[in-house]
Amino acid sequence: MKIISTFIELETGAGVSLHDIMPQLQSAIANSGINNGFVTVTSQHTTTAISINENEERLIEDVKTFLMKLVPPADKYLHNDIELRDCPPDEPENAHSHLAAMLLGSSEAIALAEGELVLGQYQSVMLFELDGPRKRRISVQVYGE
Amino acid sequence: MKIISTFIELETGAGVSLHDIMPQLQSAIANSGINNGFVTVTSQHTTTAISINENEERLIEDVKTFLMKLVPPADKYLHNDIELRDCPPDEPENAHSHLAAMLLGSSEAIALAEGELVLGQYQSVMLFELDGPRKRRISVQVYGE
Amino acid sequence: MKIISTFIELETGAGVSLHDIMPQLQSAIANSGINNGFVTVTSQHTTTAISINENEERLIEDVKTFLMKLVPPADKYLHNDIELRDCPPDEPENAHSHLAAMLLGSSEAIALAEGELVLGQYQSVMLFELDGPRKRRISVQVYGE
Repeated sequence: MKIISTFIELETGAGVSLHDIMPQLQSAIANSGINNGFVTVTSQHTTTAISINENEERLIEDVKTFLMKLVPPADKYLHNDIELRDCPPDEPENAHSHLAAMLLGSSEAIALAEGELVLGQYQSVMLFELDGPRKRRISVQVYGE
Repeated sequence: MKIISTFIELETGAGVSLHDIMPQLQSAIANSGINNGFVTVTSQHTTTAISINENEERLIEDVKTFLMKLVPPADKYLHNDIELRDCPPDEPENAHSHLAAMLLGSSEAIALAEGELVLGQYQSVMLFELDGPRKRRISVQVYGE
Repeated sequence: MKIISTFIELETGAGVSLHDIMPQLQSAIANSGINNGFVTVTSQHTTTAISINENEERLIEDVKTFLMKLVPPADKYLHNDIELRDCPPDEPENAHSHLAAMLLGSSEAIALAEGELVLGQYQSVMLFELDGPRKRRISVQVYGE
């Protein structure tokens, strides 16, 4: 089994933003020379998520609205009492971003067959930025032959 | 490493329905001839999910009730303004199904040892249909020796 | 490809509790002798979850508060009518724990490079106990070379 390890780096949008990373994934797979096997995709951050869904602009707006309602940023969270924690005073107040990240999940493992991710017509692997804008890194490791 | 790729196809129930796919998975594993390794299970759709939990009939009803409350189908979603999107006029109004799918997740990667998925006594891999009834496809790829 | 299969066992806290399992994972990886490949981590229970996030004590308290609000234990659930089910009379009333487990997810597949999990600085793999205290088992399988 061949293993090729790489990273995707991207600059994300403000607050919540969704980033379709299919072009970068396809390029990482093509560069790996691996045609059959699988790929692990793992965000390297605790206020982002990796999820597979449809890249449709109106749905993406619904995601933002829904997450704000599901985990309201203005609620009271202990993690946001920055002065009571052992951390720099300019830490962001982002407990809601961590909670959304846990629910959405940080990684995906996806089958690879004949050089293509085995996904349906409307499925895109997306990075969910939950506390942007930031520079983010995603581990992409390709395994197979 | 041997890699065997296959698909499970099934007809799902109306609205939200849960489908225990353990029999199909066990059959795919037996057919693969692979005893030790792992399995990736990935739904090929953006309004379904794959999750592992207990196949208990009263719990399944609780899941349906809970998801309807968590992501109410009758709420206002931009994705449901079909006439404003570049898509066929008979597209279903299913933003709530996409949102539930993102939270539940589209895939699982599960260890395989001595011909069996390494899961506990009450764990079943289930397809969550979130916008049925439909004909659905699930990628099952088995890796190992 | 070498495959090394093991289990982490731990005693969890009451109700909802989060357990950072990085030390046990790192020890399982070191014992495997595998440096490059990946690891599957799968809880063996239907009222626990595996998720990757920051092990920060105040955030962990926020998680407990948030889950109680998201899936209130005192709500009416059919699964909690123990006397109507075919199960022992001392079964716990834990429908809310199952629902939280589905949303959080039961497994992770994480890349391994040069003997280390490919994770960011603040990421810890954690077992989320959702119906403790109990004795729990987590499958850890390490694959690679």
